[in-house]
Amino acid sequence: MSTKDRLLGYLKECKGDWVSGELLSRRIGITRSAIWKNISKLREEGYVIESSPRKGYSLSRISEMLLPNEIREGLDTGVFGRGEIIHFRETDSTNARAKELAIQGAPEGTLIVSESQTKGRGRKGRSWFSPSEAGIYASLILRPNMPPNEAPRITFVTAVSAAETLLALTSLEVAIKWPNDILVKNRKIAGILTEISAEMDTIDYMVVGLGMNVNNPLLPDDIEEKATSIFIETGKRFPKVRIVREYLRRQEKYYRILRDSGFEPILRRWKELTNTIGKRIVVEMIGKRYTGVVQDVDQEGVLILKDEKGAFHRILSGDVTFM
Amino acid sequence: MSTKDRLLGYLKECKGDWVSGELLSRRIGITRSAIWKNISKLREEGYVIESSPRKGYSLSRISEMLLPNEIREGLDTGVFGRGEIIHFRETDSTNARAKELAIQGAPEGTLIVSESQTKGRGRKGRSWFSPSEAGIYASLILRPNMPPNEAPRITFVTAVSAAETLLALTSLEVAIKWPNDILVKNRKIAGILTEISAEMDTIDYMVVGLGMNVNNPLLPDDIEEKATSIFIETGKRFPKVRIVREYLRRQEKYYRILRDSGFEPILRRWKELTNTIGKRIVVEMIGKRYTGVVQDVDQEGVLILKDEKGAFHRILSGDVTFM
Repeated sequence: MSTKDRLLGYLKECKGDWVSGELLSRRIGITRSAIWKNISKLREEGYVIESSPRKGYSLSRISEMLLPNEIREGLDTGVFGRGEIIHFRETDSTNARAKELAIQGAPEGTLIVSESQTKGRGRKGRSWFSPSEAGIYASLILRPNMPPNEAPRITFVTAVSAAETLLALTSLEVAIKWPNDILVKNRKIAGILTEISAEMDTIDYMVVGLGMNVNNPLLPDDIEEKATSIFIETGKRFPKVRIVREYLRRQEKYYRILRDSGFEPILRRWKELTNTIGKRIVVEMIGKRYTGVVQDVDQEGVLILKDEKGAFHRILSGDVTFM
Repeated sequence: MSTKDRLLGYLKECKGDWVSGELLSRRIGITRSAIWKNISKLREEGYVIESSPRKGYSLSRISEMLLPNEIREGLDTGVFGRGEIIHFRETDSTNARAKELAIQGAPEGTLIVSESQTKGRGRKGRSWFSPSEAGIYASLILRPNMPPNEAPRITFVTAVSAAETLLALTSLEVAIKWPNDILVKNRKIAGILTEISAEMDTIDYMVVGLGMNVNNPLLPDDIEEKATSIFIETGKRFPKVRIVREYLRRQEKYYRILRDSGFEPILRRWKELTNTIGKRIVVEMIGKRYTGVVQDVDQEGVLILKDEKGAFHRILSGDVTFM
């Protein structure tokens, strides 16, 4: 453990109280000027530490950034986030970083997080608004032993995990919109971007990206009516790190259930959380567009739509708008 | 056009005849010592050019390497191999190089060829014997506008193209073994490795690798009984560049048919070329193994097997051994 981490640990133990520089210096075994230097480093990482010439130092707020140490503290998983966690203040896209690392051989469970993205992406190359420190931008590397045509199952695992996380930690009314949007009051609060690299019969790696609006006080005009954030809904800032830990825990749990018991239990839970079945929708695909009522989502995750003429359509993927 | 290419063009026009250094010097407009330097460069590229102090130079054999200029000459395609062709004397794997270029945005039709591979790969990480200059190791970048679950269709397109190429240029009895091996007398002469990078509903890029044993005079002991080469079958060396051109032409043709008319015409042609339907086989998959008779390959490219008890199995992918 580094000197800085030991100092942080001690400040956390005494959180809210003042600790003299002299005491810290003795406890950590470094000079008072080294204490001061490490306090500066911690402040750069976003920890709010007050100082007073007479009273010493006091940690008044934990960093709001998704620092690897903070994520690991109290993380209740076996593999996800247990190995390397790579943290950026800013990157183009956490999915792009994750893919690079996966190509280099990064193992399952490697996590990439960033405070902001300059090219945050949604499905089909659409952009995902990723302002500094307001949201969660996290990509997880997976190496499931499954054929590529089963990859959409992981999107269901992820949607269930993200929705349950918000239900567990907030009082928000959360629903999953097929295939992979997380809504609060019909506005998007989180999105999932799953990407795979595969041979015909085996997945090489998979990157599961989560974008979630957490502490955004407002959203740009063009997405304001379609999107929301935890802050907008509750009026309170929420610690992002708690969300990430809870999300990783559930993600790992459902990933194991999928491996051990198949897709059925995942789909069952997904159906409890979705708002899409029974709805009247327009669904747009490449070169096609159907209007109708959603009958079901079948065992392969395919949406079954009954159009106005009574014909049934199996929709593998597309953009859904509620009518 | 570079001086070297102009010199080569002139030597090709006079192939087999002697051309004096003085004449070349006048025609190309460079000094005789510059002629000499460029002759050296061409020899390094594998062109056999004889020289005589009295008679000058004579091109006696075109390079046997897959040089971009040679591939382009007489290439009858619109897109495949029309843009960049990247040639290596040696690389780890042309598929790996192609994936790197695809990530950087290389367009559809970009071709990567190598004279040898240090880590030539087949399906599921198996190695593909790739000795220097004996075989074709070629990877093509595609960006089809199709969902990832239709990607196996491209493997069928490729198998048909590779099999037809051998049928058109040689007298060999060629057959496709499901899903994507090209056999001559039940020995493997070519293999296909298709890899995709995709979001859930769209393919980002696809890399189609072809490995073909062409001028190998013999094969290593461990694959000798299962593999063969054009040289082993015919006793003659074959110009690799002709194969690549013919393959690209057919590959593009069937790729367009797939886009414009769907999978049905591809599958129909594939069935004319396969030896697998009606055969008694063992098929091995991850954790499973079936023995039975192949009934058909269906509209999704799935193999339909009837086992000894009369039960039918749909095999999406696996390793087939004829019994």
